[in-house]
Order: sequence, then C-alpha cells, then structure tokens
Amino acid sequence: MQRKRVVVLGAGFAGLHAVRVLSGRPDIEVVLVDRNNYHLFQPLLYQVATAGLEAPQIAFPIRAYLRRRSNVRFLLGRAEGADLKDQVLWVEGRPLPYDYLIIGTGSRTHDFGLPGVAQHALGLKTLDEAMRIRDRILSACEEAERTQDPERRRALLTFVVVGGGPTGVELAGALGELRRHVIARDYPSLHPSEVRIALVESAPHLLGTFKPGSRTYAQRFLERLGVELRLGERVVEVTPQGVRLHSGTFIPSHNVIWSAGVSGHPLPGLPTTRGQRVATTPALFLPEAPSVYVVGDLNYLEGPDDRPYPQVAPAAMQQGAWAARNILRSLRKEPQLPFRYKDKGSMVTLGRSHAIAEVGPLRIYGFPAWGAWLGVHLYYLVGLRNRLMVFSNWAYSYLTYDFAVRVMHHRHSFAEREGPSPQVLS
Amino acid sequence: MQRKRVVVLGAGFAGLHAVRVLSGRPDIEVVLVDRNNYHLFQPLLYQVATAGLEAPQIAFPIRAYLRRRSNVRFLLGRAEGADLKDQVLWVEGRPLPYDYLIIGTGSRTHDFGLPGVAQHALGLKTLDEAMRIRDRILSACEEAERTQDPERRRALLTFVVVGGGPTGVELAGALGELRRHVIARDYPSLHPSEVRIALVESAPHLLGTFKPGSRTYAQRFLERLGVELRLGERVVEVTPQGVRLHSGTFIPSHNVIWSAGVSGHPLPGLPTTRGQRVATTPALFLPEAPSVYVVGDLNYLEGPDDRPYPQVAPAAMQQGAWAARNILRSLRKEPQLPFRYKDKGSMVTLGRSHAIAEVGPLRIYGFPAWGAWLGVHLYYLVGLRNRLMVFSNWAYSYLTYDFAVRVMHHRHSFAEREGPSPQVLS
Repeated sequence: MQRKRVVVLGAGFAGLHAVRVLSGRPDIEVVLVDRNNYHLFQPLLYQVATAGLEAPQIAFPIRAYLRRRSNVRFLLGRAEGADLKDQVLWVEGRPLPYDYLIIGTGSRTHDFGLPGVAQHALGLKTLDEAMRIRDRILSACEEAERTQDPERRRALLTFVVVGGGPTGVELAGALGELRRHVIARDYPSLHPSEVRIALVESAPHLLGTFKPGSRTYAQRFLERLGVELRLGERVVEVTPQGVRLHSGTFIPSHNVIWSAGVSGHPLPGLPTTRGQRVATTPALFLPEAPSVYVVGDLNYLEGPDDRPYPQVAPAAMQQGAWAARNILRSLRKEPQLPFRYKDKGSMVTLGRSHAIAEVGPLRIYGFPAWGAWLGVHLYYLVGLRNRLMVFSNWAYSYLTYDFAVRVMHHRHSFAEREGPSPQVLS
Repeated sequence: MQRKRVVVLGAGFAGLHAVRVLSGRPDIEVVLVDRNNYHLFQPLLYQVATAGLEAPQIAFPIRAYLRRRSNVRFLLGRAEGADLKDQVLWVEGRPLPYDYLIIGTGSRTHDFGLPGVAQHALGLKTLDEAMRIRDRILSACEEAERTQDPERRRALLTFVVVGGGPTGVELAGALGELRRHVIARDYPSLHPSEVRIALVESAPHLLGTFKPGSRTYAQRFLERLGVELRLGERVVEVTPQGVRLHSGTFIPSHNVIWSAGVSGHPLPGLPTTRGQRVATTPALFLPEAPSVYVVGDLNYLEGPDDRPYPQVAPAAMQQGAWAARNILRSLRKEPQLPFRYKDKGSMVTLGRSHAIAEVGPLRIYGFPAWGAWLGVHLYYLVGLRNRLMVFSNWAYSYLTYDFAVRVMHHRHSFAEREGPSPQVLS
C-alpha cells in the first residue's frame, strides 16, 4: 500500500488539531511546515506584552509535540506558494509534493490602509511583537521619568489601544492593572494619574460579538480601572507623535497598539475573498482543488446564519480536525462532510478577578468567569511544563499584585530629544 | 545636614551589593545607573543559551530591587565618561554630579585580537548573546536535517566551545546533555553520533583555577559525555566555516562559542592596566581620585599572593560592599580599610548530577557537589519569583531529562546554500 502524504502548513490551532487527527496512522505520512519552530498560544500574547508571562511559556516547541507521533515530520520554513495542479508546495525555493494539503496560515494585523499604522503602531500577533510592546512600555516609563519636557512626558505616558474587541479589551485591562500595581510602585516620580490609557473603538460599544449586558459590564469595569473609552471614534492616522481621530481630536502618544482587526494571511497565489480570507466548500476544501483544505482564521465559509465563522481559536481547532477527518474519509472513498461548528461560547478577561464568559444562554461575570477563563486557557495551553509555569506565574501575580517579567530586551529610542543644552540630571 | 550623593555605575553583583550597604541611610542619596533595566545573574547564562531556562528568570528588574530602598534611584542609560576633577559622570550626553562614584562596569568577551572571533564566534556575556546562542543551536539542527550536502551537515552539527574555564566547561557539558536527551528525541533523522562537541583549551588541562584532581574529574566526565577535548591547542582564526588551530587543524563548524577569556569593560577615559582592568589602591579607590571606587571584574588589585583577585561573582559582591563601607567610613572621617578577600571556594557544574566544589581544603564531586551548586545558585539569585521559577525548571528538567525552552526567536541563516537546482524535499 502506497503511503499518502498530507502536508499541513501552519502549526497554529488549526494545523495542530489536524496533526492530532492524522497522527499514529501508518498509511499516512504527515509533514508539518511552519516558519517558527514553536506553536504559539496566541490568546495569552497580551500577557507577554504586559510583562505577566515569559515569552517561551506560551510557545511550545513543535518537535516536542511530535515526539510521540512517528508518522509526522516537521519542516521549518516559509512557504512561498503552491502548484495546485501538480500538488506541490514551495518552501524556501524547494518543492514539497503532497497528496493532500491543509493550509492554516492564520491571520495578520489589518491596518485598513490607514496611514502610519504599519510604521508607528505596534501589532500583537507574534511573539516578537509582544516582546516589542513590553520593551516599549518599559522604555516609555524610563524615558518619561528623565525627560523635563512636560509634553513629551505626557505622550510617553499615554498608551492608546485601538480596537475594542477581546484583544483590545484584555490589553487595556492589563495596562490598567500595570499602572495601578506596578508603575505606581516602580517609578516613585511618576504619579499613576499621569499615566493615560485610552481605548478607541469605532463602534458605539466594546466587544461587538458579546451580548449587550456583557458589553456594559466590560465598559463599567474598564472605566472604573481608569481606562478612557473613546467609543464611536475612528482612527484616521497614526504618527510618531500620536493618533488622529475622525472627529479631529489628536491624542499625543508614543505608544499606540493596534488591535483593530485582522485579515487573512494567505499563502501567496491563493484566490482570496472578503478580509483576505480564502473561500472553501462547506467541506473545507478549495472548489478548484479538492485535495487542498483551508482551515482556521484563513478560511472563509459562511455558517447557517450567513455570516462567516469567527476567527477564533475554537473554530480553528474544529476546522483543522474536521479537514483531517475529511481527508481520512477521502482515503476511504467516503463522502466529504460539510463542516459543523460547535459554538462553545466566548470569554474575555478584564483584569484581576474579573472576566466575562458567555456559554449558550448563560452569562457569567466576575470571579467565577475569571476562574473559568484561567481553567480553559490552562487546559488548551500545550505542554505540561508550560501549564505549570503559566499557573505559577498567575498564582504569583495574584498573590503579589506583581507583573514580574519587566525585562527590557531592546530599549526603544523615542523620536526627538529635547533642546541642545545638556540638562543636569538632578 | 547636606545629603551626599553616591552614584553606582553598573547593576551587576558589585553594584547591587554596594547599593545594599548604602540603602536605608537618610544621609545618602544613591543613584544606580545601568544600560539595562535588570540585574543579570551571569552564572546561569549558559542555561539560557542551552534552552534550560527562560531569559527573564535570570534577569531581575532593578526597580523591583529598589522598591523598598527609598534613598536609591535608578537611571537607565549608558555612561560615556567621567570628569574626575569636577566629580561628574556623563550619561547619554547629560552630566550627573556625584560626591562618590562606584564603578562596576564588569568585563566583556576578550578576543585576544584574533581574526574572525568578533565576527563569527558567539560570546556569552549578555542576555542577548545567550538567546543568540540558543537560536543558533536550534537553527543549526533544523538546517542540518534538511541539507543534503554531507559536509554542510557536519559543520552545522559541530559545536566548538573555545576556552576550558568554568563557563566553557559548563557550556560543553550542557551541550552534551542536550545532544543526548533532546536532539536525539527531537530530530529522528539526526543520529546523536553525528553531533560533535569540541572543547578547545590552550592550557594542557581544563579548569586552570581548580586543583589537579578536580581537573581530571571534569575531563573524565566530559569525555564520557562524548565531548572532544582539544587541550594544549590554540585557536588562531575563526571563519564562517570553522575554527583554525595553531597545529594547522581546521574544525569545520558553523557554531563557534567563544569563552576563552574576558577583559575589563572600563568607563571610557579611565586609565587601564593588564587585561583592560583599572588599578586601584588596596582600599579600592583610584589613586588619582579618592572619591572614585572601582569594583568587581573591572578592578585590578593584587592580593597577598601577588596575583589579582579573580573575576568572579563572590569577589565582585565583596568589593562592591567593601567600597560602599569605605564610603561610609569616609563620611564619618574614619580611615579607609584595605580590601580583604574571603575566598569561599569555587564551583562548576558539569552536567546532570555532576559538579565540582572546592571549599578550602575540601573537594566535593558528583551529586553532593551538584546539590550544593544548585543551592548556592538559588541562594544568590535575586528575587523570590526567579528562585521559584528556576527551581521549577530544574526540577522539571531533572525529572524529564528535558531542556524545555527550545523556542527560536530569530532563525539564523547560515552562509551559503547548496547548488542551483532545487532539490525535492523528500
């Protein structure tokens, strides 16, 4: 019997769950391709950005994941395109032939073509970007303490989060905690009231995908935490000096974080539809190439409500596994099944002891939701060691009110320096 | 009463121990200056380099250290020089006046002027360098697995450590463990016997500062671990392709780590003596400027045996505290005391359950020494959280034989690629 080769592109939630289904089958050889050597647990990226977790704790080495899956190999590399007719994936100039291809290359930050976003705002989709945000926050506080120009100080101490979805809300909440518990203790010369945290959202409310009651709860919590909510306001430009809003208002800030939206991150050459995503049949394969499946954030498929499935981790996991099972059906000459999404609900954490969980008709707020959030994230985090490490970090932070990973790897140098005459460092 | 200002330059072991002595004194204002926002626990750098520990776990935020020391301020910045007569330290273009100055800027990798070392070898003195070594090791294994050029594969899988002092020995031992327990399990297509680890030392034995019995023990252990010892051999050149030895031998390797020696890293403008270190009076101040103390790796002072004090952490801690106490004596118009070094012994770890400890006339080997090594390092590590995290990592590694932090932040691209025609990735 001829072994069939399944190439899985992308070791995100979708790719890993496809691998899980396909592993241990002697009739199938799996090659997992990724440009990084780790699976990134994106839901906790904002905690790396805000000094709560060490970067490697949310990154699990792919080869460790594959140790006990002997029919799966790993190939580190960037995919450059695919010849759908010849069934070949190109990885860094070399062809990798496949019988089936599962593409789960995910999404990337979308700037809506707005000027200055790519240059001056910080995204939050990769480990590197999370560490850059951490470096920026720490650099800004250091610089603010030493500058004697009050305007510069204000811009250094202003953090603008653009986008009021779950990522933006979690980030703004963590920044609020950071201000209250860390900056206040670490920088005796900075008063917490000088630190300004603004959350800009073009819709009239936060958390558009949540129920109205939850939105109000989140808004109240963030306001109480001192986060300035700018709802119904659109950003039109980001400059090195700050953010310009549609209303004409300019918020001076040297720290703009962009979480306003994502678009698909397709393999070059694939035909894309809305939001740079790739449309598939209900069974998740490409209409023009039945051996190629597209899963996760990149997939564009409308559900029974005529809206595309959400770009969230549970959908990615389910689609990855579903595509893999459809490949097994194809090998057995069984018919392909159309994807069915099981909505397990949504969660978002706001801050210490506060979260929102919506499961079916249930809405849970506060401490119980926060506990559930912790548990679910620990459960889905890959690797016993990472779970233990993250749990220890959380327990430590909870008991001490500390965000301990305040290590600046690369200091950011902010635009201009003041006047020509050296000031005495008093 | 006029408060005196003591500026402490460098938050290493010396600087931190000076701060510890001076903190809590209302008559003194201390400004601690460092180019990083953290204190680095250098003795464990090699474990970050070999994927055993997360980088932030051996880096303690300076501001957290100063929280309860209200008379100490922190200033992030690079010092550029000092006007010893005017008692001013220059930090990034601005003058910082002082009454007393303690300089503990440490040491840096010394290449002995050999060609290619700075360009092609990896140092191990900073957190960034340690992470670069980790990236290099992981990149080399990935690249070796995919290349079809056997010579390239061999060079990618050869790790050359230059320098047989404690750092070189610890690094070579950790690489040996990594090969045995991690590479063998992570890379099914690489046979551990293909991975070559060479330790080059110009002296006829390892660990020159240890007793002959300990040296033999270390050599035997490393040989049993499969480390190729090249004793009595000098490196004359490092190229992108490998290391050339004095004997004419060339070791092809894309991974050369340089731990052959350090030289002082003086504040620009200070007069230096042997090894770029700064000579002081026995009371640790500069002969030409009694208000300026030089401590730690940078200090050059000969002990009772006419040899300079060793460039090790215990000497730095003791000198930092001693200089601070001499400043207190000066404030009280008491005479300065000449530094007295308390040699607490030396330790080096070789690998799992194996270490060497020499304390006075005692020599301890194997498991007891290893246990002592763990305990001493945990004790001197700053911060309860870092201690807990490092201890958890060690316990995990010990139980699972795993080096878990195999996260490649930046993939290294190795020099040339093979032939023009693309090979099929089989």
